[in-house]
Amino acid sequence: MKEFVEFELTKEFRDRFQEALDQRDSQFIRESLEDVNPADITTLLYEFNSEEAKYTLDILPLEVKAQIIKDLDSETRAGFLKIYEPAEVTSIINLLDSDDAADILNELPIKTREEVIATLDPLLSSQVIDLLRYDENVAGGLMAKELIKARHHWSVVQCVEEIRKQAEAVTKFYTVFVVDEQDRLLGKVALQDLVISDANKLVADIYEQDVVSVETSMPDTEVAGIMKKYDLESVPVVNVHGQLVGRITIDDIVDVITEQAEEDRQLMSGITEDVEEDDTVWKNTRARLPWLLIGIFGGMLSARFMGLFEEQLARVTAIAFFVPLIQATGGNVGIQSSSLVVQSLASPDFVDEGLWQRLIKVLFVALLNGFFLSILVFGANWLLFGNQQLSLVVSIALFSVVVFASLIGTITPLILDRFGFNPAVASGPFITTINDLLGLTVYFLSIHWML
Amino acid sequence: MKEFVEFELTKEFRDRFQEALDQRDSQFIRESLEDVNPADITTLLYEFNSEEAKYTLDILPLEVKAQIIKDLDSETRAGFLKIYEPAEVTSIINLLDSDDAADILNELPIKTREEVIATLDPLLSSQVIDLLRYDENVAGGLMAKELIKARHHWSVVQCVEEIRKQAEAVTKFYTVFVVDEQDRLLGKVALQDLVISDANKLVADIYEQDVVSVETSMPDTEVAGIMKKYDLESVPVVNVHGQLVGRITIDDIVDVITEQAEEDRQLMSGITEDVEEDDTVWKNTRARLPWLLIGIFGGMLSARFMGLFEEQLARVTAIAFFVPLIQATGGNVGIQSSSLVVQSLASPDFVDEGLWQRLIKVLFVALLNGFFLSILVFGANWLLFGNQQLSLVVSIALFSVVVFASLIGTITPLILDRFGFNPAVASGPFITTINDLLGLTVYFLSIHWML
Repeated sequence: MKEFVEFELTKEFRDRFQEALDQRDSQFIRESLEDVNPADITTLLYEFNSEEAKYTLDILPLEVKAQIIKDLDSETRAGFLKIYEPAEVTSIINLLDSDDAADILNELPIKTREEVIATLDPLLSSQVIDLLRYDENVAGGLMAKELIKARHHWSVVQCVEEIRKQAEAVTKFYTVFVVDEQDRLLGKVALQDLVISDANKLVADIYEQDVVSVETSMPDTEVAGIMKKYDLESVPVVNVHGQLVGRITIDDIVDVITEQAEEDRQLMSGITEDVEEDDTVWKNTRARLPWLLIGIFGGMLSARFMGLFEEQLARVTAIAFFVPLIQATGGNVGIQSSSLVVQSLASPDFVDEGLWQRLIKVLFVALLNGFFLSILVFGANWLLFGNQQLSLVVSIALFSVVVFASLIGTITPLILDRFGFNPAVASGPFITTINDLLGLTVYFLSIHWML
Repeated sequence: MKEFVEFELTKEFRDRFQEALDQRDSQFIRESLEDVNPADITTLLYEFNSEEAKYTLDILPLEVKAQIIKDLDSETRAGFLKIYEPAEVTSIINLLDSDDAADILNELPIKTREEVIATLDPLLSSQVIDLLRYDENVAGGLMAKELIKARHHWSVVQCVEEIRKQAEAVTKFYTVFVVDEQDRLLGKVALQDLVISDANKLVADIYEQDVVSVETSMPDTEVAGIMKKYDLESVPVVNVHGQLVGRITIDDIVDVITEQAEEDRQLMSGITEDVEEDDTVWKNTRARLPWLLIGIFGGMLSARFMGLFEEQLARVTAIAFFVPLIQATGGNVGIQSSSLVVQSLASPDFVDEGLWQRLIKVLFVALLNGFFLSILVFGANWLLFGNQQLSLVVSIALFSVVVFASLIGTITPLILDRFGFNPAVASGPFITTINDLLGLTVYFLSIHWML
């Protein structure tokens, strides 16, 4: 037993490894990686360029190599596989499960893809061709074709025999699916029940009929929701005829959940494409510019708008002092509100509260918050600046901004969701820009009417 | 086979169910929920008050009742269990796995907890007492005690015999753990390998020695990282002596990942406590106020600061027009930067790039973005307002703000992380407030020097 020790990937080891690569010291490489988990080797390889990574991989056993290539992120892998001959790609993919094989094939240029598919093991080849028909964001694109099927009328012994035959191809399974003559899903038997049940019993006696399945066209986030809700470690996938065509395991769902969270976070922080800090300067710049431009556009509109009140500003310069206060509060309140809505949209209750109840509640929260804040600001302003009339106007504007920003922050994601956009968009610079403009409008209208 | 049909929880059904509850129509309740998955009943019960939910649960079979109570969120459950007698709680908890039992017991008032533990089944009681020693955010607090252990020298037949004995207590398992006489973890056998291997073989011949395990004290987010990295469906937990004390399954990890993502999202949007839209108005208000106060404080500082430049503002009123533009851009750039850092901190590379390389890269991205934006704004300003000198000052200030906000947005989460705070704090109102102040300072200093 090897207790979990994080493989010590120190700077020293990297440098030593780089030296070995430079000298083409295959012995050092082989020996130093001998007992290392493929997942740790993957992390190590991110430190080197494609040529060096390929040199390392070619030294390792083919199974380890296949495992590592499967683990790479898709962008790195796509760039990396370019330096491989199609025959090499085939030998790697032959060792993978159908779902991983299809994912990798999807990233290859069409010509290479066709070439590789034509030379794959016949069974895998037909499975992969089937999987490539599905969009990658639906159950069909997530599922693997490898699964253990049993017939209703088999005995437990027959079933175990069949598992012995099929198990070679299926790397991990915990459940045997029960189907009829037309391959329609009837139910399932947990592997553990098979182990402990009497060998002469029939599958029909021990299988569970209440089994949750999903259709090939179900979006991946919905599949994730179902697997979480019903606590499933794997879920069978059926086609429109109810025939069993694949299964999705929980580890694929973990990836879906992680990616979704990351995507939401990026949307919230105003980064458009899938970008990471260690991507190129140019890619990082491009990912940030679009949302910054929205902010700039909002800022220019604000400038134009304030221009309309030049006369008042010239008369009472102190009006300008409170622009940042109003703007920041509007932005913060808006983000808070939209973020709560996004959260509740992600885990919907059964009967929706209804738009009006929701808005009324948001309104009460806003009234309370607005009341506290504007009293506070009024007091502080009076003490600090002494201008009672302006302080009053600022506080009234602040109160109104809190209320309006709450409502807009609540409605915007609901509207986006209704029209099929990701509502998380509304938690980012988009809502901030709208609220900045809103805040200014409220503030200057208050000034116009009251000062 | 029941294909997945979302149990139709319509408003009509809820109203009909409410009617049944009002009339204490136990027959309708029993029949309408007969074939419904417990997870769906849980969703339904959120629609009713504690008394009504208890009435419904008491009609259902005890196993279903236990399952539903396990599925409730902890806050609802804590309130709900108050109306139960300790003896009832005991009968429910007796049907649960040790990890769920411990979680629920943790939520009970100490007196009830002691009473319930004393009356639990002896095995479960001792398991639960052991689990309650651990903090809920570490591996020990996440693990279940139910697992299948086998000795090294057993034959496969002996092993299956033992599974038959132990399986009653363990609801879901895919792996048999192999231990020595002192219960120290030696390795594991996948259930599927046990099924297909020759009955006369020894466990020693078929077990896997390279097994990743975690210690009881490992934080839950680290356990999640390890299970994701090594694609594990369950991981054994060992104590400091290397003895097997429990196992964690991937469904618990899915919850850890989901909660972490939600917590980060709340921090980013400036909401302090764990709050949901359907919590009370007061709780919602309280969760929002602290961050809003930080924004208000920043706004008041801004007002004071602008007061120092009253003279310039009175002379050139148009200076005020660009305050929102500068402020919004600083805020957006800061959030983008800190969010990328938070993301990279969440999935650390093996050898860190080093602070300086990181900052230099961020600097280049900022220079590029700043350059584009300030050219654009300069052109637009010239066209719209015609004041060439002010346009120049605005553009220079904008450029500087982009650069400074990038650097501060990058450094702040790194500092927070270094001192053990959740760096996601830095993606919210905190960084926005700092950047608002920074933006104003840069802008007015530019004006002071150049106008």
